[in-house]
Amino acid sequence: MLLMLHRAMVPGLRQASRLRSTSRLCSRACSTDDSFQPRHPISDDNSGDRGWRVMGTLLGLSAVLAYHERQCRAAQESPHLYTREEVSSHCSPETGIWVTLGHEVFDVTEFVDIHPGGPSKLMLAAGGPLEPFWSLYAIHNQSHVREILAQYKIGELNPKDKAPPTLGTCDPYANDPPRHPALKINSQRPFNAEPPLELLTENYITPNPLFFTRNHLPVPNLDPDTYRLQIVGPPGGQSLSLSLDDLYQFPKHEVTVTLQCAGNRRAEMTKVKEVKGLEWRTGAISTARWAGARLCDVLVQAGHHLSETEVHVCFEGLDSDPTGTAYGASIPLARALDPEAEVILAYEMNGQPLPRDHGFPVRVVVPGVVGARHVKWLGKVSVEPEESESHWQRRDYKGFSPSVDWDTVDFDSAPSIQELPIQSAITEPQEGETVESGEVTVRGYAWSGGGRAVVRVDVSLDGGLTWQVAELEGEEQRPRKAWAWRLWQLQATVPAGQKELNIICKAVDDNYNVQPDTVAPIWNLRGVLNNAWHRIHVHVTP
Amino acid sequence: MLLMLHRAMVPGLRQASRLRSTSRLCSRACSTDDSFQPRHPISDDNSGDRGWRVMGTLLGLSAVLAYHERQCRAAQESPHLYTREEVSSHCSPETGIWVTLGHEVFDVTEFVDIHPGGPSKLMLAAGGPLEPFWSLYAIHNQSHVREILAQYKIGELNPKDKAPPTLGTCDPYANDPPRHPALKINSQRPFNAEPPLELLTENYITPNPLFFTRNHLPVPNLDPDTYRLQIVGPPGGQSLSLSLDDLYQFPKHEVTVTLQCAGNRRAEMTKVKEVKGLEWRTGAISTARWAGARLCDVLVQAGHHLSETEVHVCFEGLDSDPTGTAYGASIPLARALDPEAEVILAYEMNGQPLPRDHGFPVRVVVPGVVGARHVKWLGKVSVEPEESESHWQRRDYKGFSPSVDWDTVDFDSAPSIQELPIQSAITEPQEGETVESGEVTVRGYAWSGGGRAVVRVDVSLDGGLTWQVAELEGEEQRPRKAWAWRLWQLQATVPAGQKELNIICKAVDDNYNVQPDTVAPIWNLRGVLNNAWHRIHVHVTP
Repeated sequence: MLLMLHRAMVPGLRQASRLRSTSRLCSRACSTDDSFQPRHPISDDNSGDRGWRVMGTLLGLSAVLAYHERQCRAAQESPHLYTREEVSSHCSPETGIWVTLGHEVFDVTEFVDIHPGGPSKLMLAAGGPLEPFWSLYAIHNQSHVREILAQYKIGELNPKDKAPPTLGTCDPYANDPPRHPALKINSQRPFNAEPPLELLTENYITPNPLFFTRNHLPVPNLDPDTYRLQIVGPPGGQSLSLSLDDLYQFPKHEVTVTLQCAGNRRAEMTKVKEVKGLEWRTGAISTARWAGARLCDVLVQAGHHLSETEVHVCFEGLDSDPTGTAYGASIPLARALDPEAEVILAYEMNGQPLPRDHGFPVRVVVPGVVGARHVKWLGKVSVEPEESESHWQRRDYKGFSPSVDWDTVDFDSAPSIQELPIQSAITEPQEGETVESGEVTVRGYAWSGGGRAVVRVDVSLDGGLTWQVAELEGEEQRPRKAWAWRLWQLQATVPAGQKELNIICKAVDDNYNVQPDTVAPIWNLRGVLNNAWHRIHVHVTP
Repeated sequence: MLLMLHRAMVPGLRQASRLRSTSRLCSRACSTDDSFQPRHPISDDNSGDRGWRVMGTLLGLSAVLAYHERQCRAAQESPHLYTREEVSSHCSPETGIWVTLGHEVFDVTEFVDIHPGGPSKLMLAAGGPLEPFWSLYAIHNQSHVREILAQYKIGELNPKDKAPPTLGTCDPYANDPPRHPALKINSQRPFNAEPPLELLTENYITPNPLFFTRNHLPVPNLDPDTYRLQIVGPPGGQSLSLSLDDLYQFPKHEVTVTLQCAGNRRAEMTKVKEVKGLEWRTGAISTARWAGARLCDVLVQAGHHLSETEVHVCFEGLDSDPTGTAYGASIPLARALDPEAEVILAYEMNGQPLPRDHGFPVRVVVPGVVGARHVKWLGKVSVEPEESESHWQRRDYKGFSPSVDWDTVDFDSAPSIQELPIQSAITEPQEGETVESGEVTVRGYAWSGGGRAVVRVDVSLDGGLTWQVAELEGEEQRPRKAWAWRLWQLQATVPAGQKELNIICKAVDDNYNVQPDTVAPIWNLRGVLNNAWHRIHVHVTP
């Protein structure tokens, strides 16, 4: 009776139960398999937690009997063996959807639609291992979740089947670190990837393995024991050569900062007219809690102070191209020396040492400023009369009129991008999806550069004719130091009889800067700075 | 021969000469009439100077003989007498266009089209005195200009005709100061007016009499000798009561700042849907060179410093409504105390004491911030834990979603407007005008709040399909302290066969903030913050 009630409350559960209608009891001991333990559990920030709890409990109730049946059967028979290749070929409803956990193989085709986190999230793991996802979302690390999964076991991985070989050693990218399989790769060499839309705003703080990665060159493999950061002293002064331990001696400063690539949402710009650049969708943006030494403290120790003639702080990375040219960028000295600007030489990201893809052991974090200036694998800091001579400061990351093409562009005529304009995007639902009639939940992110707070997000379901104000979520923002994004959501009624929705979001910052309506008038040859209204089109179930 | 050559060079001159073809010599002494001297000459900033010089010289050559003829005739005959009312009825091509200078009356109907500054500028004075305009544009203060005018003398003002009576003394606005006749009045009581589009961007520095005026209450008539500015001290500290002389003791700080009303361009918003507010066109913006004491110096002298709990500086004006409620506003303390923000207690505007309409004897000037915070007739400054309690801080000058109306508005939900977003507008040609085929000159202004520099202005002649980059004029802007506007112009070819142009401008600031495409999505019930693309429609001569 209790079960019946629960079933009625949870749409989709009836079908799931119908699919697994018989059960036989078996020993409880079958369920203790270590391979269900996530290998790298990290703290859970509660996103989606309640849904899992309710759903997980209910599913647990209905699934427990079926689970015992399957486990016992598996224990009695010798398991069917599969290769990784076989598993990976099962990644769609047509082929069936298989996943692995440890050495076990599961056919979760029938579970996808009732996955409490939504079908799309489970589909991210289709054809491969669950561990990278379960390690991010610790909610899975519960016995009832493992019990549900066990129902779907179809066999095990063939022990003779090895993991795919690594890249050849003559490849300059051969030493790049392993990456999370959920990342959507825009370029393998150099590695550039963004988190999938389903996970982008799942957490206010982006888990390190999902943080968007924008590399310009191969990832250097630096030894923290011999690492030195060179701080060039002022004319006549003395330079510093700082080890990691030296850097730890400065007061540790922590700050939550959203980084965004100037090319975020370039894919929409490309639809207007071809541009030069990677096809970033809406995921070239992520948020982390960074910790390190304040740049102003280090510069002051080296004898620098505000100056009329030396007005830029230049950063040089330890990543370099085959000619030895390193990545470089600069920011204004006034920002670097302002304690309120909170520019840091970061050695921690979300409480961990920086991952290699994000600048291990040290990167600059410049709150409110375009990602390109947050130089990773930092090797050298100097104070100069001019901006960095780097290609990426002088001949890239600048905005131009739509009328400027590669024949007419004059890079000296435009300022290098520093603070970024107000931005927002929809992460749920997704383009082309079908949503239920009745009510729709629209979710997304909003952020502005320069520490400007997001004060409002307007959402339209009718292509911009009418607007509703979304609810802002995530941490409150500090005045003038709103370095991190706001997540937002709107529960809206789908007008009766509507067959499709043209959903738009647009945000406003505390200077009342707004996003432009359309992409074409801000189109530029490099495809940067796309902050036009984000628009998606979805279908409504009849 | 020389004259022939000049005539060929100057279109329109032939006609002018033809109209006045005979001449007789007369004594040179006739030309020394004091009434031609502007009464309040101010320094000339060279705008349009070259055109006048060339044109004036040529016209002078052709006009000198005719001038002598008329002057001699006038000296011989007793002049015809006119009332001011008769003069004012001659203000269009149909009635004839008359103007006065001193006691003399001129029929300039035939001169309007060949006025070197353009017909529209002379038309601003049609039916009235020239002095208010000649005092602004000192270029007129030359003998050859007076000689040209003399040709058109038709008589003199009747000495018995008095100037119109002033307002009654029971009117709270009776003591408001006299204003420049060129101002376009949006409201007489309180007085709110903007410079005409023809003059708005004629000068980088707006002449004081043309500076847009935004009064909320009657203009107080303050005695500079007894004036005191009260600076409330910190808790337990001592307050200051500063005379003007006391204020002069602080280091004098000068800064060029553009002020813009939050309601600038409200008239375009009203076309989308009715709003509450004055019908400002594109002229609620002006630029002056301000001088005064830095607010940070005065606050520090009173014992104030950055604080965690007291974070707003509140200003109170000496203007008040019949209930005694004064105008008030506030800004963040961090801005007030930052020497780089250059907030001043201004007692000079373009080298003169503040005009009464602009806050005599002292107003606050807050560079990069909405006009509403630049409190005039300043009486009191205090540092408070909360923003000013003033209606204008709490219940006005805030932005809302287009979906919010007067039944649903929650003023506490939106931040008070401080820094303003990127703005630009076209001042030439004007809406509905007819331009020559061949080439068109488009002119305007662009400005952004918060010290953000204008980096580019894009202009379209085809409603936004294609764009050209305008040339920026006016003073260079300082990084992070771009407090004053840029003027801009574009010389563009009118596509052959085009019968009309849909001209648009849009600007970009150094954070790459852009203007939104259209007004409707930023419409708000108070009609503030209209920074959509500025669009005009003009006809092209066949």
